[in-house]
Amino acid sequence: MKDDENAGSNGMPRRARAPARRSDIASFIVMDVMRAAAALEAQGRSIIHMEVGQPGTSAPDTALSAVRSALDAHTLGYTAALGMDDLRGRIAQSYRDNHGIDVDASRVIVCTGSSAAFLLAFLAVFDTGAKVALPSPGYPCYRHILSALGCVSPLIETGPATRWMPTLDALSALDRDQGLDGLLIASPANPTGTVIEPVRLAELVRYCNDNGLWFISDEIYHGLTYGVPATTALAFSDDAIIVNSFSKYHSMTGWRIGWLVVPPSLVRVVERLQQNLFISAPAVSQIAAIGAYEGIGELERNRETYAKNRELLLKALPEAGITAFAPPDGAFYLYADVSAFTDDSLSFASAMLNEIGVAITPGLDFDEARGHRFVRFSYAGTEADMIEGVRRIANWPRLQPQR
Amino acid sequence: MKDDENAGSNGMPRRARAPARRSDIASFIVMDVMRAAAALEAQGRSIIHMEVGQPGTSAPDTALSAVRSALDAHTLGYTAALGMDDLRGRIAQSYRDNHGIDVDASRVIVCTGSSAAFLLAFLAVFDTGAKVALPSPGYPCYRHILSALGCVSPLIETGPATRWMPTLDALSALDRDQGLDGLLIASPANPTGTVIEPVRLAELVRYCNDNGLWFISDEIYHGLTYGVPATTALAFSDDAIIVNSFSKYHSMTGWRIGWLVVPPSLVRVVERLQQNLFISAPAVSQIAAIGAYEGIGELERNRETYAKNRELLLKALPEAGITAFAPPDGAFYLYADVSAFTDDSLSFASAMLNEIGVAITPGLDFDEARGHRFVRFSYAGTEADMIEGVRRIANWPRLQPQR
Repeated sequence: MKDDENAGSNGMPRRARAPARRSDIASFIVMDVMRAAAALEAQGRSIIHMEVGQPGTSAPDTALSAVRSALDAHTLGYTAALGMDDLRGRIAQSYRDNHGIDVDASRVIVCTGSSAAFLLAFLAVFDTGAKVALPSPGYPCYRHILSALGCVSPLIETGPATRWMPTLDALSALDRDQGLDGLLIASPANPTGTVIEPVRLAELVRYCNDNGLWFISDEIYHGLTYGVPATTALAFSDDAIIVNSFSKYHSMTGWRIGWLVVPPSLVRVVERLQQNLFISAPAVSQIAAIGAYEGIGELERNRETYAKNRELLLKALPEAGITAFAPPDGAFYLYADVSAFTDDSLSFASAMLNEIGVAITPGLDFDEARGHRFVRFSYAGTEADMIEGVRRIANWPRLQPQR
Repeated sequence: MKDDENAGSNGMPRRARAPARRSDIASFIVMDVMRAAAALEAQGRSIIHMEVGQPGTSAPDTALSAVRSALDAHTLGYTAALGMDDLRGRIAQSYRDNHGIDVDASRVIVCTGSSAAFLLAFLAVFDTGAKVALPSPGYPCYRHILSALGCVSPLIETGPATRWMPTLDALSALDRDQGLDGLLIASPANPTGTVIEPVRLAELVRYCNDNGLWFISDEIYHGLTYGVPATTALAFSDDAIIVNSFSKYHSMTGWRIGWLVVPPSLVRVVERLQQNLFISAPAVSQIAAIGAYEGIGELERNRETYAKNRELLLKALPEAGITAFAPPDGAFYLYADVSAFTDDSLSFASAMLNEIGVAITPGLDFDEARGHRFVRFSYAGTEADMIEGVRRIANWPRLQPQR
């Protein structure tokens, strides 16, 4: 059949089969750290997990009870693409309860975690080549998802002078320079934990509305703040696209359940995408989420644990020589400058894991330019783990010489 | 601030904010039918569901028991991006058990349903502009997902003469004409239920391997055949990309859990995409899936119900005047030519729903060119529902004149 070895069976030149160029995105480093940590645990090592961006607790009991009942009563098939009406109503209610804002339940779309929410939102409003500004440091998956979808994400570098949040001037300058299609910010932010001041959030939203940029607000860490309240972008505009999830405050990462609030004009657009791309979010997780709303007492106790852990780290890490943090307003992260000890946060984190069994996340995951001198500590674990983690860090020889 | 009403606050021309062009995909019509059916049910109407591509049964008891135990024992956080090792091993084992084929568990990637599996596979191997041949009729989400991801899907029209499956000649001709990057086929197929003959499947796989096309095999209806066994593309090549799911045979649609088997060279590519786009499939659903493997007895009884329903419809629908079907080898669908009654399957299905409370899916969902004269009946419901559905159809005045 094939006389010419460069020809395929159809006689045409044989083509190479290779991964798509757009699949060439960086790994989410924290997941590689998690795997390395799990491998050490499998060998019997004791590992303190300060790498994972997830609570050490399960979903609240009320969520688990709701699931137990549903297992007996329902077949748990596909739900409507927009989600169960009960859940959409309950989410809408939460904006009245927490923010005093009326949100019509028809604008709430239940998604398979904030992950699917981002995919749906990006496909709904950004075409190939769209430019979506992102603060740096920031959650790496934003730029990786955008990249896989053919979008570009110019970065707005933030730092201590601006509380690690983008300024109106920086946004405006970047927009004039590049012609942006959107801005995405998270508050409380990952990895910094910083909360943006309401007046600055309002400025950014207004700028986007005035200049034709989509404003996407990642509010996944709402509910987890320590003294500084977090404001929803819906307080300033119904045109903002809100991404949120039950993963963090509601302690339900592995259930993969979150939501979007979108302007009325986008509901049908996102519905069509959801029908085709995901069909629906998991039914069992939607039921768990409805149940979680009855478990606020338990969730507030979790938050008190994070608050205690945060106090512990803010006291103990400086004693171990790690002194420079972003303002730790919320989430369950401390973003620390470790340039006194290393200019290679990847090796630094790897050594910490291998030598003292403490897993942390190198800043490179969040900031390719400057992350080599930062690391992120997550304090979402138990108090006992935090105490042990800090004890190991304080005695780690690599931190000794500089103290 | 704004003297020129065409200028934004930054003085530049105001841009319009609109949905992305790539979001302009058709709805998945069957989900709109489901919504219309649910609305009638909410008004108290009795509706027989022959539209939904899902079992009326829950996950097997063994899956539910596994979940109950896990709710007590585990926090159910994120899993590894590739999935729980136990589940990956169990899926690999299923290829030995069902097909006598060795598949290394490292090539199995657990996904949030076949939906996420398609997204991951398409992003892994197809760039913007890639041409992926699809048989028509076929599952509409293939072309809608590909379209949202910037790919093109030339159709290979199938029909009774080729058992509704693409031929090697048709593939080869289309490839020479257009320069294809891939071929996706499903067997058993949706909406036809037809199974491709192994020798023809082997031909198509070999052609793709010889000519640099990715071969994607949707095997979601494996396990649901009636006398004709279904062959996995892995029997012919380790380079095929296999998509499968627990939704259909394992009766777990709403759990959103499925898998990919990929060539070794793509494992890390898909892992990076999964880390960033989805983090992991739902932990609770992964546990349910592990449990489902212990419930084969229950699942085989489900299949016996489908087999009975299928016999019932194959006898009763012709008596009602609906006589022309694609070969109903597998899945739980009958794809019927209704051109004797209508040339507008959308109106026909809508009338059937409104007038006699039987929900079916118009062929337009699966074949834009010829679907106006076809409809799909799903027989995944209970036997009692099928009997009642057929009774209503037999007495429907719209079918009377032609009989």
